[in-house]
This record gives sequence, C-alpha cells and structure tokens, in this order.
Amino acid sequence: MAEKASLVSWRPDIKVLDCTLRDGGLVNNFRFSDEFVKALYKANVEAGVDYMEFGYKASKDIFKVEDFGKWKFCDEESIREIVGDNPTDLKIAVMTDVGRTDYKKDVLDRSESVIDLVRTAMYIHQIPAGIKMIEDAKNKGYETSANLMAVSKVNDKDLDNGLELLAESCVDVIYLVDSFGAFYPEQIERLADKYLNFAAKTGKQIGIHAHNNQNLAFANTIEALTKGVSFLDATTCGMGRGAGNCFMESLLGFLRNPKYNLSVIMNFIEKYMLDMKKEYNWGFDIPYLLTGIFNSHPSSAINFIKEGRTDYSNLQQELMDMD
Amino acid sequence: MAEKASLVSWRPDIKVLDCTLRDGGLVNNFRFSDEFVKALYKANVEAGVDYMEFGYKASKDIFKVEDFGKWKFCDEESIREIVGDNPTDLKIAVMTDVGRTDYKKDVLDRSESVIDLVRTAMYIHQIPAGIKMIEDAKNKGYETSANLMAVSKVNDKDLDNGLELLAESCVDVIYLVDSFGAFYPEQIERLADKYLNFAAKTGKQIGIHAHNNQNLAFANTIEALTKGVSFLDATTCGMGRGAGNCFMESLLGFLRNPKYNLSVIMNFIEKYMLDMKKEYNWGFDIPYLLTGIFNSHPSSAINFIKEGRTDYSNLQQELMDMD
Repeated sequence: MAEKASLVSWRPDIKVLDCTLRDGGLVNNFRFSDEFVKALYKANVEAGVDYMEFGYKASKDIFKVEDFGKWKFCDEESIREIVGDNPTDLKIAVMTDVGRTDYKKDVLDRSESVIDLVRTAMYIHQIPAGIKMIEDAKNKGYETSANLMAVSKVNDKDLDNGLELLAESCVDVIYLVDSFGAFYPEQIERLADKYLNFAAKTGKQIGIHAHNNQNLAFANTIEALTKGVSFLDATTCGMGRGAGNCFMESLLGFLRNPKYNLSVIMNFIEKYMLDMKKEYNWGFDIPYLLTGIFNSHPSSAINFIKEGRTDYSNLQQELMDMD
Repeated sequence: MAEKASLVSWRPDIKVLDCTLRDGGLVNNFRFSDEFVKALYKANVEAGVDYMEFGYKASKDIFKVEDFGKWKFCDEESIREIVGDNPTDLKIAVMTDVGRTDYKKDVLDRSESVIDLVRTAMYIHQIPAGIKMIEDAKNKGYETSANLMAVSKVNDKDLDNGLELLAESCVDVIYLVDSFGAFYPEQIERLADKYLNFAAKTGKQIGIHAHNNQNLAFANTIEALTKGVSFLDATTCGMGRGAGNCFMESLLGFLRNPKYNLSVIMNFIEKYMLDMKKEYNWGFDIPYLLTGIFNSHPSSAINFIKEGRTDYSNLQQELMDMD
C-alpha cells in the first residue's frame, strides 16, 4: 500500500486527520463553543484536511452528560448542527473506546449518520473486544480504524500477535499510537516498517498518532509518513492532553499536495486558538519531557504542573523509582 | 570517522557542546550574571558535557563594550574568573565570526589561555577568510571548527566546493548549521551523508547545530547523530535566538553514555532557567514556524513578535512575497 514520494512530489494515499476536538477535548472537557467548532469545520474544509474527528462516542451510562461538553458524546444531532448533511469533501470521524462506548446503541447505521469513519481505541489486551466493535461499525457501513494505544509499553511478541489479529480483521486502518510520546524517530521507523509489513498482507493502511512529550510529534509523524504510513493525525497548535500532538500547521507546511492550504489554518489560529491557548495549558514542557524519556503515562506530569511544582530533578527521581 | 551504535549502546566519538551562553546570549545581549555562568559551568562539568561555549570573541573596534555583556567578547580574564585554570574534563570553546573578530590580537596563544576550541562562523562566500582564521587558531595550538552557516540557502554545487575547501584545510570539525531551522530530517540525513563523505577523505569530524523553528532541532540533531555526526550542539531549555536550539535536556535524555547526568541539568533548570525564560522570550512559535517553512532569516518573525502582531496569515503572505 505504501507509496514513495520525494520532498517535492506528493502521495495520493496521504490523509490528514484533524483531532483537535477529540484530543484537545481532553484539555477542556470537550467544552468547545459551537462557534469554535463551526469555524474549525469550515477551516478544515477549506484547508483540504481529509478527516475531522469530532470527539468520543462515550457511554452516557458511564459518563455524566453534565460533566462534559457535548463532544464527549458526539450525538448525531450535535454533529448535524455543525455540518448539516456535510456537503463537502471533508470526512467526519468519531472515536469509540473499548469498554466506554455503548456502540450497539450509540453508533447508528451509516445511512442515518453523517459520520464516515469510526475509530476504535484499544490497549493490547483489548484487541478482541476492539475487533468486535470494529465489526459492528463495519457492518453498519462505516470506514473503520483500530487505534492501538501505548505500544511503547508492549513487547515485540505481543505486538506481533496483536497486529496479526488486526491485519486479519475487517478494519481499514491500523494506527501506530505513541500515547506517552516516548518513541524516537529511529523507533518509529522500525515500528512503521513492522506495521506496514502486517498491513501489506491483507491490504490495510497504517496511521500515526504522535504525542509531543519529547518535541518529536511532528518529526515522528513525518518519519512514519516517509516510511509509507498514510493516515496522519494532527491538531491545530498541537492542542491535546499534556504535551499535545503533532501541529497541523507544521504538517500542512510539510505536505506538498496542492489541495492543502496552510493560510486557512493560520487564519483560524489567529482568530480562535490564541485565546484557547491562554485559557488552557498544553504543550511541550520539562515534566512531559521526563515522562516521555521514562516512557510513563503523562498523568504524573499533568499533576506536577497542576500543583505548580518546578522541582524537576525530584520528578525525575520519582519517575525512576516508578520504572 | 563515523561509528555506529544502537539505541542501547553508545559511541565514544560523540561530543556534546553547550552553547547556552553564545546562542542564548543573542537573546539577552550576553548579559548573564557571574552567578548564572558559574552555575552553568558547574552543571556542565557535573553533567559530563564535553564542551562549553562561553560566547563570542567579538572585535571591540566594531562592537561597543558598553552595549553588551562580557560574553560578547570573552576576554581571557572573564573566562578565568569563572573557571580558574579549568581543572576539569569540560573543554572551553569560544566563537569567532569572520569579519567581526580581531583574531590575530584577541585569540591568544593557547599556552596563555584556558580556551580549548575556537569555532569560526562563516557564510559560504567567507570560507577562504574563515580558513585563514582557522589556520591562525590552529597555529596557536587550539582545536578548531568551521561553522558553515545558512546552508539551506546554498546550492549543492557551491556546498560541494565549500566542503572540499574545508576538508582540505587544517580544521578539526566541520559543522552542519541549520541557521533558519528550515531543514526536515530527510534533508539532514542527506546533508549529514554529504558532510561525512567529505570529512572521511581527510579525517575530519562533523558537528550539527540545529534551530527549532519547525520544532525539529532535537529530531534533526539525533537524525544527524544516527548518521554518524559526532559534535552535537545544544542549550539548556533550548535558549537561543528566535525559536532557539536543540534542548540539552532532550539530548542528554537520549544519549546512552553513562557519563552524562540529566538530573544535574534538571537541577540547573529549576534554579536558573525558569526566571530566565520568564524574562526573555525564545522558543517555538508560529512566526518562527513560518520563517522555517519559507527558509527565511528569523528576523521577520522576531520583529513580528516584538510588535505584538498575531496576524499569522499576513506574515505568511509577506514571506511568500519575499521568496
């Protein structure tokens, strides 16, 4: 599936997916104004972005509706209020989480929905449950992806077994997810090769979702892209939990397909993201660097920052002790 | 000269060079307190850093002493006030600029100096003048490097000619310098190969000095390192002009040589860099991303930020018009 392109040509298999609302929603509990979401949708359409993820399809039995903005749940009506029937080339994605989604009920038949792509997030031990959800979405008519999280904590043998299961499933895209921002480009190169090898056997595509703990989200994304990965996740201003994600503006600056329009995103940033950035705290910082180096969940860094601590050497010691 | 190592082994040819005072000095006009410089020196010694660059040897005929802190000039006495006779394994570096240094007078004989390495910064058309300065430093007994700047603006043929001259000179280390933070890792990979090929013919070593305009300073540094580049420039908290440099803390987190001690740097950062970061403005920001993408000098981004502008799409247009 992987195609080759030089730095001056472009690959038609590349798809850019904006997950600002979904990963960024982890920063503000999904409380985006309708004005913001409409403007982001419009910007993505005009910038030639391929997919826009609106948020999670979270279970209302597990999560209280009043504790979150509506993009935690992504009701069909909520999305339609923004996009109508979505008469554009931009495809719409949502995320379902293994164990946290009433997928049988909440994922409608595609004929009743404006959603195009259902992404299913899972840990390695949840792959069988994830595949069941993917089969449900596939049968309902959706494009599907399997977002296998936290693989920096998974050993090679288990990963091989997991990728084999996913490659044999009905899923369309398998995502390499660096949940802890722990991977260096050398490792992404090796992993991308591994994923692409499994994918080639059964005609799947591979995606990448990177985190910026070590300031490598963009570098790892283009490393994976160079190896043949097609689906590229990014968010405006890198908005996302902790250190955030690959910057959409960096990615569109790199890609050569003339359909992508960086200046539309620049316009959106100057109008909508500057206040957002002032209000919410995300992005590269020393504590996230440390959790990245130690391949650790960012929660200890998030708490460290929330508590106003700056004793980095103690955090380093705590992370070493947890290791 | 290049050696290979995996992600779990280490290469004895790797040398880490801290240029916080020199590149960071471009942010604060070299006005660092003695306390700061002493603490940084101590931290570098304890962290196992190989070289510490104290600043420029700038001409006092060209630059007024009262306009700058003392690290613009790096008088022998100024360095000795910090390091005494430098009874440590940390080597001391200074930078001389073609056309801006009275090198015959201001670079003393090495027997009279605590300096170990004289780095000479030059543009492509200044290589003959740079080599003259390097010969002077070499004859005086110093290790030498040629820091060939702004190569993202140089065509391949000219670069080949320049590298040939440098490879035939008496210089010890030739630096690949991404002055505008314009290179992607793919390009660094190609350039590192090119530099290493020239270097191999005459036994030189290659160094890398990266800028963070596109959030790629660290990624490009480890890309070059992986290809066989030995001398790695970094600054604490990435302090440097505009978007800044490769973060020392990221680099030491990556390197596997047990002599490097990251927690010493963490200690230094929490005590000395947080206030510095509040007082001075450097680091990744959208305007620097744009000058990086457009392979342009960061001055337009620096002015844009200084003027408090946030109309990024206009800056993008201005950079396109300049292109």
